[in-house]
Amino acid sequence: MSIPILNCDRNSRDQLDRFLLDAKEDLSVATEKILPILDAVRTRGDKALIEYTEKFDGITLSSVTLDPHSIQTNLDPKIKEAFLRAKKNIETFHEAQKRESWSKTIDGNRLGVKYTPIPSLSVYAPGGKALYPSSVLMGVIPAKIAGVKNIQLVTPPQKEGLPEILIWLSQILGVNRIVTVGGAQGIAACAYGTESIPKSEFIVGPGNAYVAAAKSYLAGKGIIGIDSPAGPSEVCIIADASANPKWVACDMLSQAEHGEDSSAILLTTDKNFAVKVSEELEKAFIERPKRLEMKQNSIYKNSAIIIFPSLEDCIWFSNELAPEHLEIQTKTNEEVFSKIEHAGSVFLGPYSPVAMGDYISGTNHILPTARGSRIYSSLGVDTFLKRVTFQEVTKESLESLYPFVKLMSELEGLDEEHGTSVKIRTEESL
Amino acid sequence: MSIPILNCDRNSRDQLDRFLLDAKEDLSVATEKILPILDAVRTRGDKALIEYTEKFDGITLSSVTLDPHSIQTNLDPKIKEAFLRAKKNIETFHEAQKRESWSKTIDGNRLGVKYTPIPSLSVYAPGGKALYPSSVLMGVIPAKIAGVKNIQLVTPPQKEGLPEILIWLSQILGVNRIVTVGGAQGIAACAYGTESIPKSEFIVGPGNAYVAAAKSYLAGKGIIGIDSPAGPSEVCIIADASANPKWVACDMLSQAEHGEDSSAILLTTDKNFAVKVSEELEKAFIERPKRLEMKQNSIYKNSAIIIFPSLEDCIWFSNELAPEHLEIQTKTNEEVFSKIEHAGSVFLGPYSPVAMGDYISGTNHILPTARGSRIYSSLGVDTFLKRVTFQEVTKESLESLYPFVKLMSELEGLDEEHGTSVKIRTEESL
Repeated sequence: MSIPILNCDRNSRDQLDRFLLDAKEDLSVATEKILPILDAVRTRGDKALIEYTEKFDGITLSSVTLDPHSIQTNLDPKIKEAFLRAKKNIETFHEAQKRESWSKTIDGNRLGVKYTPIPSLSVYAPGGKALYPSSVLMGVIPAKIAGVKNIQLVTPPQKEGLPEILIWLSQILGVNRIVTVGGAQGIAACAYGTESIPKSEFIVGPGNAYVAAAKSYLAGKGIIGIDSPAGPSEVCIIADASANPKWVACDMLSQAEHGEDSSAILLTTDKNFAVKVSEELEKAFIERPKRLEMKQNSIYKNSAIIIFPSLEDCIWFSNELAPEHLEIQTKTNEEVFSKIEHAGSVFLGPYSPVAMGDYISGTNHILPTARGSRIYSSLGVDTFLKRVTFQEVTKESLESLYPFVKLMSELEGLDEEHGTSVKIRTEESL
Repeated sequence: MSIPILNCDRNSRDQLDRFLLDAKEDLSVATEKILPILDAVRTRGDKALIEYTEKFDGITLSSVTLDPHSIQTNLDPKIKEAFLRAKKNIETFHEAQKRESWSKTIDGNRLGVKYTPIPSLSVYAPGGKALYPSSVLMGVIPAKIAGVKNIQLVTPPQKEGLPEILIWLSQILGVNRIVTVGGAQGIAACAYGTESIPKSEFIVGPGNAYVAAAKSYLAGKGIIGIDSPAGPSEVCIIADASANPKWVACDMLSQAEHGEDSSAILLTTDKNFAVKVSEELEKAFIERPKRLEMKQNSIYKNSAIIIFPSLEDCIWFSNELAPEHLEIQTKTNEEVFSKIEHAGSVFLGPYSPVAMGDYISGTNHILPTARGSRIYSSLGVDTFLKRVTFQEVTKESLESLYPFVKLMSELEGLDEEHGTSVKIRTEESL
């Protein structure tokens, strides 16, 4: 087998449409299973959390929370150095996203926007094999910079104790507490609050189907805000013969390494380059056989190399895909990027593999998947800020604008009170 | 009967908690009814739209869309003048919200944010008695300023023809087309697209329970983005004896005029003032009896005057309420406002009744309700913009950061491909 190589133009809907399915994970089965859990946690609080943790994790909790600042850690200094470097870059990039409140005079009145942070946040971190400490940086740092005061980390307990890296990260990031309850019960605890866990208004971070179903259900009910649902990871790469086919193949495999649902789509105009990348993929399967079946399933079944007549066509299809990650490795990267409308995070040039953004460059790696970047953004400071708009109307302006308000409120059948509330202020003084 | 006057402090949970229910409309009954409609429109397109419009509106459509720019209108010039003044103020306020893309050097690499608009938008405008042309301004203007290219107005057909004001507004706002289909079928048409209606990625605007259910269901499936659900209208007013009790009473009735579910909560420290406002409400019921029962139900059942020991307590409870609209009419408005954390739109001083923002001051009146302003904002230019983040890593920076990526990817079990994708770029040249 090998990766499919397709020759397409903009009319090849038969071949292209299958990459454009807005495939969201079907959470209906998981949702049915979690509803009783949500209900139990809402009504019975900590007690329910302890019972579910015994049942699902085989662990008897003496407390459902933990103060990270009360625990000594003994991490390898080299690991610390790596995470501190990442933290600094992520902080610098997100500091630049901060918003200044402002006001200006419009038609005689003072109008403006005051930015305020959301009140509280829970960042979910999966346990076991899916331990991604880098995602803790990505979830907590933008919220801290936005000014969110109450931040808790939520993670399943481990028989051997929580990973030291999570405790240390909570310390250096200023996380207020760790909630040691995983799964739907952990999400429910944060959404509703319990005796020992304060309610959070917002929950972010990846998790299994039960976590995703709980987040989505509670967000649909208006109980919490959430990040966009994390589907399988994907990359689109626009490359020409100036790119290194071995590097491009490895970048594609970086996505495949996440799971067999992940996809890597290479868009190019160069048939020879397409063949070379396909060959490099085969060589890599031999040289780096870890997780082979998973990587091959991802590459053979969910990925493709698509040859278009022109670079313009490649850009067009990338915008149709609205990929989570987009790499641009061509002779004209800036020009290509200027035409990109929809993508989560973009990686320009030969030395910007996605892994640099995953870990250390400073951009956020919590990104919209499944074409979500047509309307959503990566996690950022804005995710945790609200625009409180305000106005202070002057007596003079109110008087001069009243005739317009009168007409408009009459047209909408709201003149009796809306209209009058302005009118009486023109008729008598305060 | 009269409006409840409550004496409370921060511990009066028995009396206060009922104002803090995150009451979202229960859409489950409506959702069940609309699912077959969504399915029919998705599979049978225009034909289904024509059938449902015959069934629900009693109108046989020859076309499901209409080009507003092909129609002559003959509106009262005074009405035009009012809407043009509102348009100008709304445009000026939202122009000030525009974002500049930026980039900066972080740890040797170029990182940045490019703002791009969402691809397309539908703005729903209810028909019949709920005709609110001002909401068309509020939905379309921020999207136009964000650069959204494809904007359609969606509104039920009328036996006597579409209101001229909607056609004229579509002309002056540069709306691309009017979709003359209402209800869940109109929302489905925009979400899925049909033979004659292009798919929209985003739908905003108020509507009845079927419209709300369709929007919410389709957003939950990841098919469209939507504004936050529009619950009953609400105002919170923080006022002291310096305010005019008659004006405050009329501002409360402006919310009551929207429907009996609407609520108006006055927070004050002054018992005499509370009594005066209650008396003014009773006088107003006699002087302005239109929609009396509705207004009285809203005021007597869903509203209250709450007397707190201090202004700080009033501010505290206002932040708990996170109201859609907040009026501040005190001797120290700026100081009070500086402590406001959660509110949709704030109205400062005696000459800023909510009606000014509803129509003409320039702020947006599409706002989060039901405590949504704890985490959401009013509609604005940001609603229709995405942050595309990007990075261009240099060879030197990649080489110096590789040891950190190696450690971090090993810790996450992703060293084989993630780690290698960086490593191979340090080992050989392009």
